[in-house]
Amino acid sequence: MSHTTAGKDKLIARVRRIKGQIEGLERALQAERPCAEILRQLASVRGAMNGLTAEVMEDHLRGHVLDAETPAARRQGGEEMIDIIRTYLK
Amino acid sequence: MSHTTAGKDKLIARVRRIKGQIEGLERALQAERPCAEILRQLASVRGAMNGLTAEVMEDHLRGHVLDAETPAARRQGGEEMIDIIRTYLK
Amino acid sequence: MSHTTAGKDKLIARVRRIKGQIEGLERALQAERPCAEILRQLASVRGAMNGLTAEVMEDHLRGHVLDAETPAARRQGGEEMIDIIRTYLK
Amino acid sequence: MSHTTAGKDKLIARVRRIKGQIEGLERALQAERPCAEILRQLASVRGAMNGLTAEVMEDHLRGHVLDAETPAARRQGGEEMIDIIRTYLK
Repeated sequence: MSHTTAGKDKLIARVRRIKGQIEGLERALQAERPCAEILRQLASVRGAMNGLTAEVMEDHLRGHVLDAETPAARRQGGEEMIDIIRTYLK
Repeated sequence: MSHTTAGKDKLIARVRRIKGQIEGLERALQAERPCAEILRQLASVRGAMNGLTAEVMEDHLRGHVLDAETPAARRQGGEEMIDIIRTYLK
Repeated sequence: MSHTTAGKDKLIARVRRIKGQIEGLERALQAERPCAEILRQLASVRGAMNGLTAEVMEDHLRGHVLDAETPAARRQGGEEMIDIIRTYLK
Repeated sequence: MSHTTAGKDKLIARVRRIKGQIEGLERALQAERPCAEILRQLASVRGAMNGLTAEVMEDHLRGHVLDAETPAARRQGGEEMIDIIRTYLK
């Protein structure tokens, strides 16, 4: 995955933030916090997951389509991108 | 939009099917059908809308990125694709 | 469905607005408008569909759970609501 | 949150499974696994998050609406449920 060291570090930082949010959710459930608060935390995780998914898709498009080294590699990266979109939207 | 006549016809056929589903939904509401039935119809429209969205995105990727005529056009089509993904997932 | 005349009229007005949006989408595809514009219209329909779905769920909760006439009817309306949530989120 | 010990334990078990999936995602990014694999893992987390969200909503409906101890408590639990649905679908 990620095609530059900076890109990889950014994705890992995002995943770690999500892990921190999940740990907060676990603590809130343990402490029997109100439903409305739990659902707000779930909505935050959902937002963060969408952001991460968009960034992984963007990375794929840049690394395997726009910056592909040969026309054949670009074609393959493009077909993978189409599979990704279909899976996400099915 | 759509970069081939066949592609355009396919998209328009999909939109017309969705319009038919919406008309069915209107009739079901008029006839005061049960909630569960209305919600099943809403879920079908949602599925059909996702399928149409995936097809429009695929069309964009093929027409403006993979089959772009110049590297500059491909770069621009790719940046538009990234905006599209971000908007969809925000 | 809908448990008051005002509620029914509001839902039907929403469905008609969505039908108008779908017709706009069909015209945009016919006129070969740019992808980005088509995808913005698709995002608007998605937002309107979500609003309609939330309103149908709210109507169900009010009519079949909160205002149920007997405890047994409330229990049944509640179980239907749980099925609806599971289906929506599956 | 959760209104029975069994319900609480089930929710916490779900959150821990999601945490395990997020850790797997972090390892996959560290190991520079292919994009398609990363996106499959993201889709699994999304599915698990939806399942957890549905269960928290179901718990709220049972604990604060169906099994509410007074009509006033039920009314309040129902209004919270409507806010939850609107927030989720906005």
